[in-house]
Amino acid sequence: MNAPLDSAAARYAELLARTREPFPASRKIYLPGVLHASVAAPMREVQLSNGECVALYDTSGPYTDPAVAIDVRQGLPALRAPWIQARGDTEAYAGRAAQAVDDGARSSAGGADGATDEARARLAQLRAQAAGLQRTPRRAKPGGNVTQMHYARRGIVTPEMEFVALRENGKREWMAAYLADAQREQRLRGAPLGAQIPRTITPEFVRDEVARGRAIIPANINHTELEPSAIGRNFLVKINANIGNSALTSSIEEEVEKMVWAIRWGADNVMDLSTGRAIHTTRDWIVRNAPVPIGTVPIYQALEKVGGVAEDLSWEIFRDTLIEQAEQGVDYFTIHAGLRLAFVPLTARRRTGIVSRGGSIMAKWCIAHHKESFLYTHFEDICEIMKQYDVSFSLGDGLRPGCAADANDPAQFAELHTLGELTQIAWKHEVQTMIEGPGHVPMHMVQANMDEQLKHCHEAPFYTLGPLVTDISPGYDHIASAIGAAMIGWFGTAMLCYVTPKEHLGLPDRDDVKAGIVAYKIAAHAADIAKGHPCARARDDALSQARFEFRWSDQFNLSLDPDTARDFHDETLPKDASKNAHFCSMCGPKFCSMKITQEVRDYAAAQGLSAEQALAQGMARKAEEFKAGGGEFYVPVRAD
Amino acid sequence: MNAPLDSAAARYAELLARTREPFPASRKIYLPGVLHASVAAPMREVQLSNGECVALYDTSGPYTDPAVAIDVRQGLPALRAPWIQARGDTEAYAGRAAQAVDDGARSSAGGADGATDEARARLAQLRAQAAGLQRTPRRAKPGGNVTQMHYARRGIVTPEMEFVALRENGKREWMAAYLADAQREQRLRGAPLGAQIPRTITPEFVRDEVARGRAIIPANINHTELEPSAIGRNFLVKINANIGNSALTSSIEEEVEKMVWAIRWGADNVMDLSTGRAIHTTRDWIVRNAPVPIGTVPIYQALEKVGGVAEDLSWEIFRDTLIEQAEQGVDYFTIHAGLRLAFVPLTARRRTGIVSRGGSIMAKWCIAHHKESFLYTHFEDICEIMKQYDVSFSLGDGLRPGCAADANDPAQFAELHTLGELTQIAWKHEVQTMIEGPGHVPMHMVQANMDEQLKHCHEAPFYTLGPLVTDISPGYDHIASAIGAAMIGWFGTAMLCYVTPKEHLGLPDRDDVKAGIVAYKIAAHAADIAKGHPCARARDDALSQARFEFRWSDQFNLSLDPDTARDFHDETLPKDASKNAHFCSMCGPKFCSMKITQEVRDYAAAQGLSAEQALAQGMARKAEEFKAGGGEFYVPVRAD
Repeated sequence: MNAPLDSAAARYAELLARTREPFPASRKIYLPGVLHASVAAPMREVQLSNGECVALYDTSGPYTDPAVAIDVRQGLPALRAPWIQARGDTEAYAGRAAQAVDDGARSSAGGADGATDEARARLAQLRAQAAGLQRTPRRAKPGGNVTQMHYARRGIVTPEMEFVALRENGKREWMAAYLADAQREQRLRGAPLGAQIPRTITPEFVRDEVARGRAIIPANINHTELEPSAIGRNFLVKINANIGNSALTSSIEEEVEKMVWAIRWGADNVMDLSTGRAIHTTRDWIVRNAPVPIGTVPIYQALEKVGGVAEDLSWEIFRDTLIEQAEQGVDYFTIHAGLRLAFVPLTARRRTGIVSRGGSIMAKWCIAHHKESFLYTHFEDICEIMKQYDVSFSLGDGLRPGCAADANDPAQFAELHTLGELTQIAWKHEVQTMIEGPGHVPMHMVQANMDEQLKHCHEAPFYTLGPLVTDISPGYDHIASAIGAAMIGWFGTAMLCYVTPKEHLGLPDRDDVKAGIVAYKIAAHAADIAKGHPCARARDDALSQARFEFRWSDQFNLSLDPDTARDFHDETLPKDASKNAHFCSMCGPKFCSMKITQEVRDYAAAQGLSAEQALAQGMARKAEEFKAGGGEFYVPVRAD
Repeated sequence: MNAPLDSAAARYAELLARTREPFPASRKIYLPGVLHASVAAPMREVQLSNGECVALYDTSGPYTDPAVAIDVRQGLPALRAPWIQARGDTEAYAGRAAQAVDDGARSSAGGADGATDEARARLAQLRAQAAGLQRTPRRAKPGGNVTQMHYARRGIVTPEMEFVALRENGKREWMAAYLADAQREQRLRGAPLGAQIPRTITPEFVRDEVARGRAIIPANINHTELEPSAIGRNFLVKINANIGNSALTSSIEEEVEKMVWAIRWGADNVMDLSTGRAIHTTRDWIVRNAPVPIGTVPIYQALEKVGGVAEDLSWEIFRDTLIEQAEQGVDYFTIHAGLRLAFVPLTARRRTGIVSRGGSIMAKWCIAHHKESFLYTHFEDICEIMKQYDVSFSLGDGLRPGCAADANDPAQFAELHTLGELTQIAWKHEVQTMIEGPGHVPMHMVQANMDEQLKHCHEAPFYTLGPLVTDISPGYDHIASAIGAAMIGWFGTAMLCYVTPKEHLGLPDRDDVKAGIVAYKIAAHAADIAKGHPCARARDDALSQARFEFRWSDQFNLSLDPDTARDFHDETLPKDASKNAHFCSMCGPKFCSMKITQEVRDYAAAQGLSAEQALAQGMARKAEEFKAGGGEFYVPVRAD
């Protein structure tokens, strides 16, 4: 089953060595804050062989900065601590006392109290390793509110907001030069479909978007290690990677490994969906070592605390779990408060019923007690907790469709409308809120999801799982869902929850996590281009230019996965020399179309034509032909 | 370099054994013709564990029918021979005399005449192996026309057309039962966006679509082994897989392997893009063993014949190549006749110039001679050849964009409009025609490609390469392009040319071919669902039902790739018992949402509610809430 901890530690060290390696030809740069001197937003700068540099959004955190010393037993540097301290509206406190159930001691997996001797010993060992990761929690001073939305509505531009603006805006000097070409600027506008992305993303713009609820900055005051980022339709589309052990497999080390691995490849957010033992201790490891926001589904842990019996759940146990996780620094909670008792029968005719874990737990509770969900009835109590720590809501879609046949049905939309109502309540408390969405939706029904969400949830950020556009591809559902994800991202979804190739089949390993992330970076980036984010297409253009000029290494280094691009190339043309070869392995030297294009340019030049003249001449000639045809499409064919 | 032929033959035998294996729980069935007794259209019937059967469209040919004896040195049974014979409008003839250049003897790869002794000996050996595959060619009797379009316009429903109707329509008894549910029927209509797909696809409908040029049935009279299929927006979206050796790697055996492998996983069409030596002999192997249409780009071989010097190409050499390939049985030719001299300067300002191989060859020829392309000036001569064999046009997009920055530019659309003009000429000759499309296109610019094509090419089938919606994913371009492919398939594209993970990097191996095909089956199927093909979603529904009922094996067997689905599942839960386990490896038994759904149903039943009543009650309640809210979205939260 589980490998001994020593060997796990060795594996971890090996992994960390790999994940600490900077990307090829890349160096970490930091964009300095103007409003806040302590802000330094990271980017990855890729040095091209022609002397140019391309600055890329970077989610990998301090791990890829050789100048930062990393000790996973102590956690990352607490970069936000001085910002939070300076605001003077929080207080340190003793925190909730640790309890045996926090790490699943009542889990049904073991003996009478749910644990074997071996399991107990193992847990003690794990906890000892997490000793250096214990922090004194903070919360708002009595009656206070420490959410980014609260500050934003008061006109305060926080360091978090400036940090976000710097990252989103990219390296301005470079972008300015890129955007200077007016024609290019025009073509880069995309089709925003209602998104309103300014050419320059200022800290003030971030503040405004957070104030009106159209973006969130998940940033628990107890997650001081966080590099803040925004989720909103007027920002770059973000992706979320799920990790988490389960009752059946996995171990803590693997989960931390997966988190570092996930952010290396571009996960903007990570959800810890652990449901097994050591759930509290796992979270300490993950949050303390995470530069990205961490989300959870607190009902999973609450269920562990009641031995897996949904009926035994109560508001008190749930409330206690919220506080426990808020103190640890979780940045957003998925809460299925929109699944009301009345909606449960709406699922009876479905082909695949309720497929959300959290949704099914709450449906079961509602049925067993024949009562309204305590998440719904206690929603304002939950808001009171969230605002003391700045935990953001991710309002869960417990009734999302589990197959194409159930898409956009009354159950799904009844819940979505309720989530819109709850959003208004959360905003009354100035708690940051996003809305979760499906799932399984055929392509022609995707747009309706976005429309309904925008209409009923008042532009709160949408956070969807895919959607998968067909059900017939188990083993390849990262692809089936990336199609729906790209489309809904363009339509206005702010964050895409990834799907791995193992979806529906098993737990993802590291290769699956990477495959899922890359598929979703493609979807998110494609959406950014389509909605016209000003920084998006610069990377495509730089890579395509490198491709055209046979700068193979630059092409690899600018790609989402330089290792794989290089390996694939080397399989066919293994010689180093071919990295500069002026042809590709696909066509060989004789058929090289890129080479021929150069001749086309020479031809145009030899005719004494500027590119513009050539363009004009070509178009003029075309127009003449159409005229000559007299409205007919027939073109006389010359015999020569 | 190349493995000895003996070991290649052994590998081939081993592969054939694997590819001859029927899919799990599947058997080949044949739907009998009504108009034509000799028609028997193949389908794959999957037997589910609950006694149901699902009939799937099957591209794999006789290879997966254990009752058919296969000998690749002799080729597949000539099922179309009696149909062609019966029409009485063709004649056998001696055919063009074989020439040394047919197999690339003037290739620049070898010595003075382009060949080493070793290469010559090897070629002789390959040719000897292809001896059993030589056929006497047929062509139309003098002045005749033997295209499916010619017959269609005269009201003749050919066996080919009935064959197509049977395949497209699926197993009628089963579909009729499936579609009987009125509500389901309603939801299955999709959003056709101009497609007009009838509930039942009759042979007469096929005839009508072919007559008006909105669909083609690529079916050279010399490809008697073909199982006919249709390409058109009112039919299932088809996919094409490219295979082909190159100057640098690969061998004949591998190419035949790839073809059989490609159709096993669902390639509806295969293009042989070989450019190296033994190009003629390779084609004999492939066509004689292919139950799917084979396409080529004749200019590749023509260029080999002139030693790779584009300037030395001539109409005579090209014409000779067309006849050579038409006699062998190639079903469609990519011909870049829309790339006119005047359009070449339009590419001078492009980021990545001309990226089509065929396009760049013709551009170079036009420049060198400063003359209009001979493909354009001789277009009617080409039509005269095509109609004697029923070779279909695939009018090539030599000016397709090679990166996002070049998408939808004047060069691309100037060529597209010319292809529309040429379509009218081809139709005047009753030659079947489809139009090739891009390429690299950001999501928001995809629709314009379809709109322009529909407008200017008179609804001739569109056949696109992807398009890729971003340029930054080398190594994963099957995913980046599947996104664009799914969208444009929904918008009306009839065939999608696959992209493998090796695109832009190297030549695909067998795993890459499979990965590309599965990604494109996802895209094509998603498009079929969205455009409302009546048979499409039945497979999704059956698979999702199996998933919900924990019929794991049924889920695997209905998926696009049963092997991978099963392997992924077994990695986490390797025990056979878990194939029937009533929980998944992802959540474990405690969190099983599917199980809880059954309790929801029991609950609804216990309340004495039929599903409809529950539905009505839920909706009524929701309506009341909205009323109670008086237009406000706020819902009073009860403290209980």
